[in-house]
Amino acid sequence: MKNFITFEGCDGVGKSFQINLLKDYCKKHSLNNVVFTREPGGSVVAEKIRDIILDAKNDSITDLCEAFLYSASRAQHVEEKILPALKAGKTVICDRFVDSSYVYQGVGRGLGLEKVVALNAIAVGECMPQYTVFLDLPPKQAFLRKGGVDKADRLEIADISFHEALYDAYKQLIKTYPERFIVIDASGTIAETHEKIIRALTLRNVL
Amino acid sequence: MKNFITFEGCDGVGKSFQINLLKDYCKKHSLNNVVFTREPGGSVVAEKIRDIILDAKNDSITDLCEAFLYSASRAQHVEEKILPALKAGKTVICDRFVDSSYVYQGVGRGLGLEKVVALNAIAVGECMPQYTVFLDLPPKQAFLRKGGVDKADRLEIADISFHEALYDAYKQLIKTYPERFIVIDASGTIAETHEKIIRALTLRNVL
Repeated sequence: MKNFITFEGCDGVGKSFQINLLKDYCKKHSLNNVVFTREPGGSVVAEKIRDIILDAKNDSITDLCEAFLYSASRAQHVEEKILPALKAGKTVICDRFVDSSYVYQGVGRGLGLEKVVALNAIAVGECMPQYTVFLDLPPKQAFLRKGGVDKADRLEIADISFHEALYDAYKQLIKTYPERFIVIDASGTIAETHEKIIRALTLRNVL
Repeated sequence: MKNFITFEGCDGVGKSFQINLLKDYCKKHSLNNVVFTREPGGSVVAEKIRDIILDAKNDSITDLCEAFLYSASRAQHVEEKILPALKAGKTVICDRFVDSSYVYQGVGRGLGLEKVVALNAIAVGECMPQYTVFLDLPPKQAFLRKGGVDKADRLEIADISFHEALYDAYKQLIKTYPERFIVIDASGTIAETHEKIIRALTLRNVL
């Protein structure tokens, strides 16, 4: 949907940090028409769903049940917050959306992309992002940047390869939806990445 | 799936009462291989999901979010309880299952059958009932039986027509899945209906 923008990226890529910089930029330039959100999106119901997912006592939760809970929360977020804002003429910027589920549940949890795509298609209906900003940094680089060489060395190889599988899944999605994805090279400094994001969104008349 | 039996029927038809009679029958005849269950099925996660749905404070919950929550609960119930019992060679009898969602969410809430069927197909996978016992009693008769003529007269016409729409939806499902549904005329006495259920299940080698 027009003016609906999502941000995606692997763990450690600095996504939330960049979204905060973008929020500051909008404030500074009086771009008051932009709404920032993230799941669960402030809805009481969605918060409660999140509590179930995050509650450590619920370790018996099945992967499929979890995927349904994320979709339930998303359906609520879309209908209660995102769609009304878009219909009121706002631009909506959302930290993570369907692609995170595709990648984390579909590939990470091994449920398969097809199931998770089908679930989310029902959850969001026509409310798919016009653009998805993907902050591109291979997992190994992200880990190195986060903790330095020593910390990265200590990481289990299995852990790195898990994150690399997620990264590859994102890359596959970008190939599948080339018109929706805006790939931003996130290997530079924080300021450089911020500049690239502003430029990309301004070019597309989102800001 | 073989030996997976569900019970369905409109409100007031005496479904839970009949299931209890069936449970007593199994006990009396030492049919210890039969497991009785109903959603949320005793799982901690599913109980918590049910709390969200039933919590009066959550009146902002959207119909679609609710349908996802029911499916989440069902996915958990299937994987945690129904499938393991079936795999252990048990017969599983479940009070309400996918057809209730088709009818109550798809038709009652107006989400549309197609969406709710698609959601549930993902939630249960191959774990569809071998047989579904439908206790057949038109809503008006069920209301009359429950509260007497006076009480039924006081019911809003809209309320009766809502339940009649659900009943019609069940009838449509029975036409769509004639091999799965066992239709039991529930207009007689409790003992008569119980007899019919026992006969139908014995005939099909379920008991």
